[in-house]
Amino acid sequence: MKILVINAGSSSLKYQLYDMTDESVLAKGLVERIGMDSSIVTHKPTGRPDVTEVSEILEHTTAIRKVLALLTDKENGVIESVDEIQAVGHRVVHGGEFFKESALVDAEAKSKIRQLFDLAPLHNPASMLGIKATEANMPGVPQVVVFDTAFHQTMPETAYLYAIPRVLYNKYKVRRYGMHGTSHDFVSKAAADFLGRPLEDLKIITCHIGNGASLTAVDGGKSVDTSMGMTPLEGLMMGTRSGDLDPAIVPYVMNKEELTVNEVNSMLNKHSGLLAISGISSDMREITEGMEKGDAHSKLAFDMYEYRLRKYIGSYAAALNGVDVIVFTAGVGENSVVLRKKVCENLTYLGVELDEELNAVRSGEPRRISSRNSKVEVLVVPTNEELVIARDTNRIVQSLNA
Amino acid sequence: MKILVINAGSSSLKYQLYDMTDESVLAKGLVERIGMDSSIVTHKPTGRPDVTEVSEILEHTTAIRKVLALLTDKENGVIESVDEIQAVGHRVVHGGEFFKESALVDAEAKSKIRQLFDLAPLHNPASMLGIKATEANMPGVPQVVVFDTAFHQTMPETAYLYAIPRVLYNKYKVRRYGMHGTSHDFVSKAAADFLGRPLEDLKIITCHIGNGASLTAVDGGKSVDTSMGMTPLEGLMMGTRSGDLDPAIVPYVMNKEELTVNEVNSMLNKHSGLLAISGISSDMREITEGMEKGDAHSKLAFDMYEYRLRKYIGSYAAALNGVDVIVFTAGVGENSVVLRKKVCENLTYLGVELDEELNAVRSGEPRRISSRNSKVEVLVVPTNEELVIARDTNRIVQSLNA
Repeated sequence: MKILVINAGSSSLKYQLYDMTDESVLAKGLVERIGMDSSIVTHKPTGRPDVTEVSEILEHTTAIRKVLALLTDKENGVIESVDEIQAVGHRVVHGGEFFKESALVDAEAKSKIRQLFDLAPLHNPASMLGIKATEANMPGVPQVVVFDTAFHQTMPETAYLYAIPRVLYNKYKVRRYGMHGTSHDFVSKAAADFLGRPLEDLKIITCHIGNGASLTAVDGGKSVDTSMGMTPLEGLMMGTRSGDLDPAIVPYVMNKEELTVNEVNSMLNKHSGLLAISGISSDMREITEGMEKGDAHSKLAFDMYEYRLRKYIGSYAAALNGVDVIVFTAGVGENSVVLRKKVCENLTYLGVELDEELNAVRSGEPRRISSRNSKVEVLVVPTNEELVIARDTNRIVQSLNA
Repeated sequence: MKILVINAGSSSLKYQLYDMTDESVLAKGLVERIGMDSSIVTHKPTGRPDVTEVSEILEHTTAIRKVLALLTDKENGVIESVDEIQAVGHRVVHGGEFFKESALVDAEAKSKIRQLFDLAPLHNPASMLGIKATEANMPGVPQVVVFDTAFHQTMPETAYLYAIPRVLYNKYKVRRYGMHGTSHDFVSKAAADFLGRPLEDLKIITCHIGNGASLTAVDGGKSVDTSMGMTPLEGLMMGTRSGDLDPAIVPYVMNKEELTVNEVNSMLNKHSGLLAISGISSDMREITEGMEKGDAHSKLAFDMYEYRLRKYIGSYAAALNGVDVIVFTAGVGENSVVLRKKVCENLTYLGVELDEELNAVRSGEPRRISSRNSKVEVLVVPTNEELVIARDTNRIVQSLNA
């Protein structure tokens, strides 16, 4: 079975085509600047040179038509015909309390995703555009939706409720949902596999640290707490997001600076985090470079980022009453040797002992970075959210045919 | 030296008269409903029956005149003349970045306290009323101000800055200040004394848990992090305060419910926390009773409160890279046997081992509640913020005379 995985944003569309017989990627790519004057398409057939095109792509239906044309192109294509694609899997950010797992796209699923526009106004409408554009181009092909929130639906009330009037939960479903669920799910399972230990027996803290960042406390394979909240703003300091702050600061600043709801959201989501403190960049590589060159603001940004990450690890160790495995994943988690080093150096009270040589190794494979004597296994596990989407899509579509 | 300690709120005034020769309390009391139609004065001379009076007290100057009359009253008084009171110490909530320690009241100090009205609009103006009312009634008597924030001024930038645009710190001094500093300071010193170990060598987590609640990470006697933030709203779940929540919830709810800045502040500070989740009470005693009778909402409120407290302890253990001593203090911390038990049962990963018999003892003295084998000393230390104020006032006034 060949499966197309789609991650649609409001003005972008990422894709990967999988051959599920060996879970290989046949091609992947990205359409950027949809709806703007010159859209850019980057198509990457596996093992062959990239193809970049600039053209006018005004909406998502045209974007998918373009992707299908590239996939079947005589020169740069990887399949003969669109008919070979037997299913499409979509990443959807918010599944609310409706979706505890991935689901087949039907009228009911679409209605529920629409009901969640209010909770994820930047994300769910874009996913819906991707679903509709797929329907228009590939009528009759089964589609599956895979949610960022679903893995976290196992959290107990104690962890997902906020200590605010209940009417806000009853009326608007204000609660913690968490994000990056496919990643936390994937790397916690991969960690147990790597260690050759049963997932059921393990207390794992997964650190998904990319431009967005979240931690999850995984107890016996189940998410029991996670740092992102009703929205992706809560929790860790991120590239451009503030993470946690005194909630009273929000109305205070709105009042002082005469900001609207949209303006304060934009400030906290797009102009805060590493970018605000360093004054240089939201990218951990540039922050690290700045720090190494002696820039004080970059050093402060790095130190705050590390300190807050470490405190969350400590907090989840208390949530789980102990920790067997700490997993680093995603862009920063997989690549920042110095961040992992600094965090682990300050977790010796948990019995964490880093092996500096192992920590310095760069590889695309799951690997241990703690020493033999460490009481906590510390791993780097490359995440693969697209593969989880392809697998879930495959499983659900296979069960339809069974 | 006899010292009067005053804690002025907007419509209340608490007082204690100390004889500093033996740090004994000669009398204490409370004036309530200042400015309302029938004010209530409760005067408690030590070792004699309480006196309660209802009268019209329209503002703080009259309140202090009343207090001085009671203290020198033929029948219920404890001193012959007001002249015996050689100094007055005031509790002031917010010292901003101006006050790293207690200070003599002079024109400069008053000007600074006034400049902080904006950061503590509910508290600092009330303190200023208390200072002015004292001046009016006791001209020439030296006054000292003792700040809730001062102990936390040793926090590093990494802990006190929020990851938001720097302009907000530069223009409005938006940062973490913390509260309950006199209590965290007092109980951390008392803990070291009790253990007979040098404070400099200890990593202590102090849990001040009353109707308001905050944790502090105390490293070698210095506050290095604390859970209250720019305002007392951040951090733990409290009697009526939400504590931490996704900051994006604030504008979301303001929008949905068409709330003003004042209304959302009031919701999060006065109608959240234990009260909102239990639907019954903000008082941990009533929550515990409700839970023991099988009320599900009371149990949920208790469980959330305990869980969030425990996560903060874990977080500060990571901040300090270990913990030697955990101290419980204030109303709930000193009295809730069941809360301490539940927290400690889930901290066995730190080597915490509770002695259930010791935990059940009720006493007004500092005491150990961990077992002999516990790797972390767990103590209950009754707090005494008034005594800290009296001592600081005594020290500063003595140094004037020297």
